Amino acid sequence: MKSQEDNYRRGLELLRTIHGGHAGEALVAAQRDVCPDFATMSIEWALGGVMGRPGLDLKTRQLVVVAACATLGHAMPQLRAHVEGALAVGATRDEVVETILQTLFYAGGANVANALHIAQEAFTASPAE
Amino acid sequence: MKSQEDNYRRGLELLRTIHGGHAGEALVAAQRDVCPDFATMSIEWALGGVMGRPGLDLKTRQLVVVAACATLGHAMPQLRAHVEGALAVGATRDEVVETILQTLFYAGGANVANALHIAQEAFTASPAE
Amino acid sequence: MKSQEDNYRRGLELLRTIHGGHAGEALVAAQRDVCPDFATMSIEWALGGVMGRPGLDLKTRQLVVVAACATLGHAMPQLRAHVEGALAVGATRDEVVETILQTLFYAGGANVANALHIAQEAFTASPAE
Amino acid sequence: MKSQEDNYRRGLELLRTIHGGHAGEALVAAQRDVCPDFATMSIEWALGGVMGRPGLDLKTRQLVVVAACATLGHAMPQLRAHVEGALAVGATRDEVVETILQTLFYAGGANVANALHIAQEAFTASPAE
Amino acid sequence: MKSQEDNYRRGLELLRTIHGGHAGEALVAAQRDVCPDFATMSIEWALGGVMGRPGLDLKTRQLVVVAACATLGHAMPQLRAHVEGALAVGATRDEVVETILQTLFYAGGANVANALHIAQEAFTASPAE
Amino acid sequence: MKSQEDNYRRGLELLRTIHGGHAGEALVAAQRDVCPDFATMSIEWALGGVMGRPGLDLKTRQLVVVAACATLGHAMPQLRAHVEGALAVGATRDEVVETILQTLFYAGGANVANALHIAQEAFTASPAE
Repeated sequence: MKSQEDNYRRGLELLRTIHGGHAGEALVAAQRDVCPDFATMSIEWALGGVMGRPGLDLKTRQLVVVAACATLGHAMPQLRAHVEGALAVGATRDEVVETILQTLFYAGGANVANALHIAQEAFTASPAE
Repeated sequence: MKSQEDNYRRGLELLRTIHGGHAGEALVAAQRDVCPDFATMSIEWALGGVMGRPGLDLKTRQLVVVAACATLGHAMPQLRAHVEGALAVGATRDEVVETILQTLFYAGGANVANALHIAQEAFTASPAE
Repeated sequence: MKSQEDNYRRGLELLRTIHGGHAGEALVAAQRDVCPDFATMSIEWALGGVMGRPGLDLKTRQLVVVAACATLGHAMPQLRAHVEGALAVGATRDEVVETILQTLFYAGGANVANALHIAQEAFTASPAE
Repeated sequence: MKSQEDNYRRGLELLRTIHGGHAGEALVAAQRDVCPDFATMSIEWALGGVMGRPGLDLKTRQLVVVAACATLGHAMPQLRAHVEGALAVGATRDEVVETILQTLFYAGGANVANALHIAQEAFTASPAE
Repeated sequence: MKSQEDNYRRGLELLRTIHGGHAGEALVAAQRDVCPDFATMSIEWALGGVMGRPGLDLKTRQLVVVAACATLGHAMPQLRAHVEGALAVGATRDEVVETILQTLFYAGGANVANALHIAQEAFTASPAE
Repeated sequence: MKSQEDNYRRGLELLRTIHGGHAGEALVAAQRDVCPDFATMSIEWALGGVMGRPGLDLKTRQLVVVAACATLGHAMPQLRAHVEGALAVGATRDEVVETILQTLFYAGGANVANALHIAQEAFTASPAE
């Protein structure tokens, strides 16, 4: 079992890798206002403790989270963050689109349409491939 | 645009590849009783039309569907079928487990616990790696 | 506004019409064990207060509930009861199947497959059309 | 089995009937930007392949989709489009309201309140009955 | 069984207690536009008939509804209203935050993050404790 | 920030308090088969890290989780475990029933009916109050 400090440090590194230095700090800052411990949990548990595990590469992990967010259908800020995160760790726009499309017969077409809309926004805001 | 017959034929091939000759036929047979057209749609649209698309490898597509089913939280027959499908197209048990675990902060821990239980059942029923 | 007693009496009539004399009493009995007031609420509010409203015929109301249960994806006892209810107020098996199929691009194919399975069970248990 | 081209042509007709010439083209255009194949799938599969099936009239199909969207609780652009679609194929405002209200004991009151809000927006934007 | 008029009167009192005189009237007014009977049902059934029951104190009931809305993940207007309602009947901001955080392993972290954001908005808009 | 070992030790204590010595060990054992790290995460994060926080008493936390599980509608093993957990930390059967009933206008009546059924099973299996 990795130590708690290791998880936090690894989580912070992943926050920078996946969500970008500035956006990452903004994200943590927003959570710190209302519940600072939840910002810590997000970094230590979700990033350092799960996302940083071996056994599955970072790009596949980001696509898996894109699929989970598309299936939820309402977690739009998280979907946007992980579309950007997937691109940041090497996924192509086409792979992101295919991942969302692949959820069609599980999440339904309304969720896919709305998720593709968010992906389009993320693509438009980021530099061309 | 691929022709409809192409999609159906490609879907039938994928049904055999992913879900196995016997299980695949059983799955289609079960749907044919109550709504034969839905069995056709599943093969032509979900398998031939989406799963068979280029742009994302088959193993990642299966893991994406495992993530979507884990996030739904109640689609247990489909989760079981796609855990088996993921193994059939080259995913390891560890990759399946990591995929389910990666949905933890989106699908919640109850869904992860119940999905891991289904994965365990699929692992027990299939020959050891 | 209809009086509360009117809603309860109308609800009890609908329970008999839609869910059958015996099954209806069994359903109410099951709820009375753990929370008698919820049985009353189901009859007075859900049946007498909503299902018994004018403005939409009873068959369409039953199909609407079948669609809602198929979309939830986990409310299987209620889906079964309302498939039977739809048949009891004049829907054909084909209309029930088409209703479930119509939710495909909103509820997803896994939910549709599982809902069709429940419909098949209800059809098998009930006398042929 | 209808041919693929027939499904696409029938889907395009339904797009015009249900969502109106201009809105329909806008909807397809929006999807074409990020994933042109999904626009094709929506027309060929969801509209031509499911909505265009016999066995249930178009008005009931639109009300079924309104119920499915109200139950999902977050597919607001689709709910809005199908409230307008229901009116376009002959449903009255009262029938749309009763359909949403009928989902109350399955989708919950929060979803019903938010769906009625969307319906009100659609009613306000469209010419009086 | 309490009489229907009693439920409505008790519901109206609770509307004032929980959601405040002005906001309460605005909420009812908004529903009256599109479906006046749903405004009545909300007051008579949800407030007078359920929220007003004995057996659980009003503060715990409000926290339970905050947990339910956080778990749904998309019922943001209702979540906001019940965060305010919880504060109005004696819950502290810390208790509201802990309630949302307690749903983490059931609703998932995306829902918790978005619910905390709504809570922060409600806290900012209301006078400091 | 509490140390990781503290969270694990506190989580193990809560596992015994809430879910009972024997059942608790069985629960952990079941998860250890397929993903031992998830058993550790459940104890360290969900129990020690969240459930064990100050700011909300243990009984209210259990009722909040009962509400979250009732709202999900499909997490039946977890709902059962937390109904038993609520009773174990001092909630009465009536408080559990009222908590489930309080979710009615958010989770819907189908979810409430199915959750009450699970509560009834838990009540029958446990010694009378």
